[in-house]
Amino acid sequence: MEETNRCWYFAERPDGEPDADSFELRADEVPSPASGELLVRVAYLSVDPYMRGRMRDSESYAEPWAVGDALKGGVVGEVVESRSEQFDEGAFVTGNGTWADYSVLDADDVAPVDTDVAPLPAYLGVLGMPGRTAYFGLLDVGEPTPGDTVVVSGAAGAVGSVVGQIAKLNGCRVVGFAGSDEKTSWLTDELGFDAAVNYKETDDYGDALDDVAPNGVDVYFDNVGGPITDAVFTKLNLDARVAVCGQIAHYNDETVPTGPRKLPMLIAPRAKVQGLLVSDYATRFGVAAERLGQWVASGEIAHRETVVDGLENAPDAFLGLFSGDNVGKQVVRVSE
Amino acid sequence: MEETNRCWYFAERPDGEPDADSFELRADEVPSPASGELLVRVAYLSVDPYMRGRMRDSESYAEPWAVGDALKGGVVGEVVESRSEQFDEGAFVTGNGTWADYSVLDADDVAPVDTDVAPLPAYLGVLGMPGRTAYFGLLDVGEPTPGDTVVVSGAAGAVGSVVGQIAKLNGCRVVGFAGSDEKTSWLTDELGFDAAVNYKETDDYGDALDDVAPNGVDVYFDNVGGPITDAVFTKLNLDARVAVCGQIAHYNDETVPTGPRKLPMLIAPRAKVQGLLVSDYATRFGVAAERLGQWVASGEIAHRETVVDGLENAPDAFLGLFSGDNVGKQVVRVSE
Repeated sequence: MEETNRCWYFAERPDGEPDADSFELRADEVPSPASGELLVRVAYLSVDPYMRGRMRDSESYAEPWAVGDALKGGVVGEVVESRSEQFDEGAFVTGNGTWADYSVLDADDVAPVDTDVAPLPAYLGVLGMPGRTAYFGLLDVGEPTPGDTVVVSGAAGAVGSVVGQIAKLNGCRVVGFAGSDEKTSWLTDELGFDAAVNYKETDDYGDALDDVAPNGVDVYFDNVGGPITDAVFTKLNLDARVAVCGQIAHYNDETVPTGPRKLPMLIAPRAKVQGLLVSDYATRFGVAAERLGQWVASGEIAHRETVVDGLENAPDAFLGLFSGDNVGKQVVRVSE
Repeated sequence: MEETNRCWYFAERPDGEPDADSFELRADEVPSPASGELLVRVAYLSVDPYMRGRMRDSESYAEPWAVGDALKGGVVGEVVESRSEQFDEGAFVTGNGTWADYSVLDADDVAPVDTDVAPLPAYLGVLGMPGRTAYFGLLDVGEPTPGDTVVVSGAAGAVGSVVGQIAKLNGCRVVGFAGSDEKTSWLTDELGFDAAVNYKETDDYGDALDDVAPNGVDVYFDNVGGPITDAVFTKLNLDARVAVCGQIAHYNDETVPTGPRKLPMLIAPRAKVQGLLVSDYATRFGVAAERLGQWVASGEIAHRETVVDGLENAPDAFLGLFSGDNVGKQVVRVSE
């Protein structure tokens, strides 16, 4: 075992778009697990858009990070020291840990990882929090029925790519918005989306929707906000459902952003718009994990991870989320 | 019976705020009912904010009025000639008719009126479409539970005044926004609202909400839109429900209005925002009518109608809705 443990700390709150100044890498001693805890050598760590919210000094669903805190998020890795009967040394587990070489996790809060089903980083994506978010957000909030047109923003991201595939499994027509031709090709050629729009190469999203969703929009799964969302709201069908999962276009706004008022657009279609957080569905995580595992094992759901190598590059991987660098789930490889 | 029948016609589509140019009063012959129809001498006719939408040349939930059409809406009056076995001459009925001295209605589409329960104009308000809108919008979309804080905009209007009282019957704390001290006094002194805000005398609606809804907002019943709604959205509690019934602040806008983006505000509270139209609940109108009738008869729900006298003044009564002239339901007395 290495004698030092590199760990990222939250150095300062960003104004607007965060940069490297918010992060500080320090070398600590390797921590020791207490009774019931596990020392995990981190193989991959997850960077997620919601973490931008934790950088704010305001209450939200996730407790804000305090300046000086170690950064935390989803990790997957190997148990190198166990003080729990639940996991032996050598087992692979996933849970919430620090952005570090080694992280101590409570054995009650981790889940086992089966590398026969999928490789390690998939447990931070399709088989982790993003996959569960897609599952419950689409099925419980979006309520898709066969024949519905489902539109997904951020469709090539960790959540959106799974949303679209579950919608296809439910017999829907699926349209994705993504930010490059590489991404849109992945959606249509490998994931089975019926159509995909490269929004960076499109002038008028309303016209684009008329082409790819000629019967209007029954379900909109929104990860992004901004002008794509503005256009989709003008195409909502009767009884449309909008699942508001993320609004990454606005996470770096320092004042309340303005845009077209949408409430007047909801009355004629009697549309429902609902914010969602995956933690509300915790009692049903087991069912979701089982079904997602089956779909991944059978190949009915494909997945992809964009890997940045090296713990030292974790901030860059996080910052890249806001410029759409990732295809599928963005992870950082810490060790292998 | 008079020999001529005055009737209002839709003369031209308005740009922005409508004025008298959109209306033309003509004298026709008194119409004759066909088999199954009733000739009704109109006692009161209803003017409603949703009619502004019918003046637009665009599809919405209510078919647009064609220029040259007779204006139509809720009426209550006496059957003066019956060609149906369902109603005798002399009976009082309510249904959708023309803005006229006399109107022909299909006997299958009218409901009987019992003046022992409430006077005639109440059948266009608390016991008519606005009362049913309040009933289903609050109970089905707002889903109030005892102890919830319910905020109502347009609280002294035909719908809002009933919403607040049903919320009180459900054990909620009820706060109303209205546009005059006369209205706010009516809400708190006669209808049992816990608090009311005269928005025309209030600079900061957020501060006002902190005073009157210190525990945040669980249910928002929105008839208005605009800055009141903007403030309420910053105070939504976990699992908040927003029923979007009307957006009268925006009905005269000729371009899509802009305002603070609200989707980012929905995620942390997992709030649900839903547009509603009372016609969706038609199969349950009987239940609503019965309960509302009981509440009105027992005095548990109070009501008020603002009466403009004379068919010739119907356009003024309609236009007055947009400046908030009405307390409770705005009606026009055509005959008595």
